Amino acid sequence: MMKRQKIAALLKTENPIENILIKGWVRTKRDAKTFSFIEVNDGSCLKNIQIIVDEKTKGYNEIKKLTTGSAVAVWGNIVSSQGGGQQWEVQAIKIETISLASETFPLQKKRHSDEYLRTIAHLRPRTNKYGSVFRIRSELAYAVHQFFREQGFRYIHTPVITGSDCEGAGELFRVTTLDPSSAMISNKKLNFSDDFFGAESNLAVSGQLSAEMFALALGDVYTFGPTFRAENSNTSRHVAEFWMIEPEMAFCDLTGNMDMGETLIKFLIQFTIDNCSEDLNLFSRFVDKTLMKTLENIIISDFIRLPYHEAIEILTQAKTTFEFEVAYGSDLQSEHERYLTEKHFKKPVILFDYPKTIKPFYMRLNEDDETVAAMDILVPRIGELIGGSQREERLDVLEKRMTESGLSRENYWWYLDSRRFGTVPHSGFGLGFERLLMLITGISNIRDVIPFPRTPGNIDF
Amino acid sequence: MMKRQKIAALLKTENPIENILIKGWVRTKRDAKTFSFIEVNDGSCLKNIQIIVDEKTKGYNEIKKLTTGSAVAVWGNIVSSQGGGQQWEVQAIKIETISLASETFPLQKKRHSDEYLRTIAHLRPRTNKYGSVFRIRSELAYAVHQFFREQGFRYIHTPVITGSDCEGAGELFRVTTLDPSSAMISNKKLNFSDDFFGAESNLAVSGQLSAEMFALALGDVYTFGPTFRAENSNTSRHVAEFWMIEPEMAFCDLTGNMDMGETLIKFLIQFTIDNCSEDLNLFSRFVDKTLMKTLENIIISDFIRLPYHEAIEILTQAKTTFEFEVAYGSDLQSEHERYLTEKHFKKPVILFDYPKTIKPFYMRLNEDDETVAAMDILVPRIGELIGGSQREERLDVLEKRMTESGLSRENYWWYLDSRRFGTVPHSGFGLGFERLLMLITGISNIRDVIPFPRTPGNIDF
Repeated sequence: MMKRQKIAALLKTENPIENILIKGWVRTKRDAKTFSFIEVNDGSCLKNIQIIVDEKTKGYNEIKKLTTGSAVAVWGNIVSSQGGGQQWEVQAIKIETISLASETFPLQKKRHSDEYLRTIAHLRPRTNKYGSVFRIRSELAYAVHQFFREQGFRYIHTPVITGSDCEGAGELFRVTTLDPSSAMISNKKLNFSDDFFGAESNLAVSGQLSAEMFALALGDVYTFGPTFRAENSNTSRHVAEFWMIEPEMAFCDLTGNMDMGETLIKFLIQFTIDNCSEDLNLFSRFVDKTLMKTLENIIISDFIRLPYHEAIEILTQAKTTFEFEVAYGSDLQSEHERYLTEKHFKKPVILFDYPKTIKPFYMRLNEDDETVAAMDILVPRIGELIGGSQREERLDVLEKRMTESGLSRENYWWYLDSRRFGTVPHSGFGLGFERLLMLITGISNIRDVIPFPRTPGNIDF
Repeated sequence: MMKRQKIAALLKTENPIENILIKGWVRTKRDAKTFSFIEVNDGSCLKNIQIIVDEKTKGYNEIKKLTTGSAVAVWGNIVSSQGGGQQWEVQAIKIETISLASETFPLQKKRHSDEYLRTIAHLRPRTNKYGSVFRIRSELAYAVHQFFREQGFRYIHTPVITGSDCEGAGELFRVTTLDPSSAMISNKKLNFSDDFFGAESNLAVSGQLSAEMFALALGDVYTFGPTFRAENSNTSRHVAEFWMIEPEMAFCDLTGNMDMGETLIKFLIQFTIDNCSEDLNLFSRFVDKTLMKTLENIIISDFIRLPYHEAIEILTQAKTTFEFEVAYGSDLQSEHERYLTEKHFKKPVILFDYPKTIKPFYMRLNEDDETVAAMDILVPRIGELIGGSQREERLDVLEKRMTESGLSRENYWWYLDSRRFGTVPHSGFGLGFERLLMLITGISNIRDVIPFPRTPGNIDF
């Protein structure tokens, strides 16, 4: 059986090619008296390939019925295009209809709103914009693996179902096999001993604690997998399920951690520019005209490194009215982060040494006994892209911080073990993959860079 | 600050190197009168590096206290080793203790059972065997991405939290934010309208249905992520959370599907042999002496392709007593699969055209109206490694099969849409990543190839 060739590869040819087979979907069709132009897309790239079908083409009579979205197989020759707009086109020898799309196919040739396309998330990757989003997403995921592998990191699959709550934020999805209508009602509370894991189990908000165990064995490791927050917020920045990249490095301090975060962000942007120019071009033309300037500015900038307390001073003196008040000891809001990167410094900013009161127990306590060795990387338009820290490697300090945070040492016996047996300074961070995609594509709603977004009330597809 | 160098890189040197810095953990120490040998491992490779510490070494007096598992920093020169067993060693100029491991460190120099090591899964990657397991796991994950990317596939992150049950097996973990002690008791059953997603939500058993939507847009796609089965089985082949690789290919029939599965398996084994020889060697020496023969046999074999009904005939005539009876219309058990691959054919076997009664609704009905275009790839020692099918692309047949399977068309409106608008023949399969690792390492318990296994009653770490 003859194998189909992908349009992405064919369009890169330097010479005409005879006897090719293309399979794909009809985007548009223009009929003239004795011939038709059919634009076919197979998803391998943004571009369609133009097919010329005329009276000599076997199957010419059937193409009258072809609707937008129909699937076709085309045998023919790649020839120089006489018309403008494309270098190559296909002179069809034979065309076959694989299937017709019903006339109710929602993606007719017109612009649709992102809101509407979210309601047909199963079809939106067939549009130019979302095809490009998901091709870039795929390339970026690959780039993450390539980056870490070349630096000798090991990829660790940390568990999604977990008994611990890394961030202590309490925004957890519970995982259960209990039938609530029987087992529990009798004693008016959940009896976890009957549950699948025999204990309360949740979806992981981070793979960090598990990854630390592996960093202390294999050296440099990273996770890259789904993480979950049961946060009831309907904003353009929150989804309940998202992917996170979390490197964890033994023998690495806060400075090394910042260096790694900065290098990674620059690498991933450069990789997209080098490998996804056609798709990226769509976003810089139609989504955000300043996109390339923003991205190139990040690549060439030395990121500002600024202690948290200095950031607070800058924000306090800023001649801008913020919705949320700025005060030492409170978390920065998105508007503050964007002020620092977009208005004040006009480049990415790494904030570090946050007050311990607003950061989790595992961050290393600084000598002032007041701040921890945390660092967040803020970028224009997104705000916080990376959050990380040097981890508390001293057993006694860690235990004290856990007690202060109301965490049970018994539940974390294994985590504490790692500080008993050959503990070393180590650091890591989390990079939200969807936020990275928003940065790189200019798309402003997180729901539009993930295949099937999960938000309060939305479990379709 | 001087940067540490990784032992894996240093041991590959062709010449002596001056002034290096190593950081790692003490595996063993042998003291002579005026000097000591310290074996240090940093997790970057299986091998330790031997450190010579003598009276000229700064810090020599402190090394008396070094216990197994302690962390050290060593400055020195890489020199030719005088002793046997290694090409290079480090003449230490200075040694510093980063931390001492308590004497209760469980991983003293002796063999531990896999069962015991499972109880300290947070420490087992510090052993030779598990270090090798997880380095191979990382390399294999990379190989998966490389393989698909080179063939123009796009990586899709399909959702973990889902409202549908792809396999219809009903072994689902429920995901909820409801507080069972209040909301539900009043009406004696779960009111999902109060739940986070407003509907019953589960952990995905497969990403296939979502991946199909993307194959019908982008052409060739794959998923590689965690999947979940709430199966209450305590066997060496089952865990509740595991990683699965699922390619989905537009314009691909069952034969193309088999070809892809066979090519992928061979590629991944060859990749491991080429890139992980040192770690792989540990398994062929200490875990399964026939390992390399098994792996090489798979690479050079043309996989047998056999209709299910012929397999049943072979098994019925086999001069072996099976625990489970063989009969047309029943699923093969592991013992049957292994008989076919290990005894009868002595190579991998692809079974196809299974009775529709034992396969899910989405598999393409054959013309006999009795079997479906399913295919399973069986390999020696593991049994089923891949399960896949050509998908039912005909709307009317699919709807009929859903009705027969008791599935609601309303819940799958989006899935059915894909058969209304430009439906095309397409195929895909699932490859269990842990089973692949068991095949490649010779390890016989699935709990020992995954960082933190989740099984009934086990949620620790």
